[in-house]
Amino acid sequence: MSSFIPGFNNTLDAKAQFYLELAEQCAALLQGQRNLVSNTANVSSLVYHALQETPTREGKPVNWVGFYLADAKRPDTLVLGPFQGKPACVEIAFGKGVCGTAASTSASLVVKDVSMFPGHISCDAASKSEVVVPLRASNGKVQGVFDIDASVVDAFDDFDRIGLEAIANLVAEASDF
Amino acid sequence: MSSFIPGFNNTLDAKAQFYLELAEQCAALLQGQRNLVSNTANVSSLVYHALQETPTREGKPVNWVGFYLADAKRPDTLVLGPFQGKPACVEIAFGKGVCGTAASTSASLVVKDVSMFPGHISCDAASKSEVVVPLRASNGKVQGVFDIDASVVDAFDDFDRIGLEAIANLVAEASDF
Repeated sequence: MSSFIPGFNNTLDAKAQFYLELAEQCAALLQGQRNLVSNTANVSSLVYHALQETPTREGKPVNWVGFYLADAKRPDTLVLGPFQGKPACVEIAFGKGVCGTAASTSASLVVKDVSMFPGHISCDAASKSEVVVPLRASNGKVQGVFDIDASVVDAFDDFDRIGLEAIANLVAEASDF
Repeated sequence: MSSFIPGFNNTLDAKAQFYLELAEQCAALLQGQRNLVSNTANVSSLVYHALQETPTREGKPVNWVGFYLADAKRPDTLVLGPFQGKPACVEIAFGKGVCGTAASTSASLVVKDVSMFPGHISCDAASKSEVVVPLRASNGKVQGVFDIDASVVDAFDDFDRIGLEAIANLVAEASDF
C-alpha cells in the first residue's frame, strides 16, 4: 500500500493515512479500463465522496472535485471534464487562473484564498480555496489538471497536494491520451 | 420556453413545469460549447442538483445522474461518461441491462423496479428504479444514453421520461460526436 505515495511511508498522520487508502482504492477502480473519460469520471466520484465523508475534513467541506482536460484540437485550452459538484466553467486557457497556471507551469498549486490569486476565474462563488495538480502523460506533457475546491479558505495543505498528485499520477498511468 | 418540450405545452402539472424550466437552463448551459464531455459533465451536474432540490421529488431521492457514451473504437460498447453520484460500472455492452437495452433499441426505458429487469446490471445496490433515454446524433445513430437512478422503487413516470428525453436531445444537438 505504501508504494502508492512514497513520501507518506513513515508518517502516522491521519490525513496521510487517508490518502494512502484513497490511492489504493483509486488503483483498484482504474484496473482494466484505459478510457480517460471513464477513469476521470469514476476517480472524481471516489475522491469527492471520500473527502466529503472523512472526519479529517470536518469544518473544511470540499464542494467540487474534477478534471479539466487539454482540448485535442486546441492544445493550449483546458475544457471541462468529468467532475462532482455544481456546474462549472467550460473552458480555461493555459496560463489563466489557478487551473490554467497549474497547466502552463506543470506545477501543483495550493491556494489558501482564491480571491487573492491574480487572475482567478470564479466559476462558483462558493469556492474559497483550491488545490490543482497537473495530469501528465508518460512523455511529461500536461494533458489536464485535477482540481479540488473547498467552501472555506485555507482548506488544503501539502498532505492534500501530495495525496492528490499521487492520485492524478495513477489516473494518468492508467489512461490513454 | 414551451418549445423545448412540445408535449408539455398545455399542462400545468408541477413536474412538467419543472422540466420545462430545467430544459431552458440546460439550453443556456450548453450555449457556445460543442465538446461532448464538457456538455455531458455540466448537464449531469445541473440535472442531478435540480432533481435533488425540487420538492416534486420528495420521498423519491435521485442518487445517480450521468451518461454512458458509445466507445469510438468498439461501437457496440457503452463506456462510463461524466456523471454525478457514487462510482459506477465502467463498461456495458449494447443489449445488456437497462442502459444497454435502451442503447440497442434506441428507445427510452422507465424501470419501476430494477431487480425485476431481465439481465439488470447492478452497479450500485442503492439504485432501485431507473429511467434511461438514448442520446442520438443528428443521423439517428445512438451515441450513448442518459441514465437517472433513484434509491426507491417506482420513482419515475412518463413526465420524467419526456423531460429527460428533451434534455438528452438538447445535449445531442449541442455537441459534436
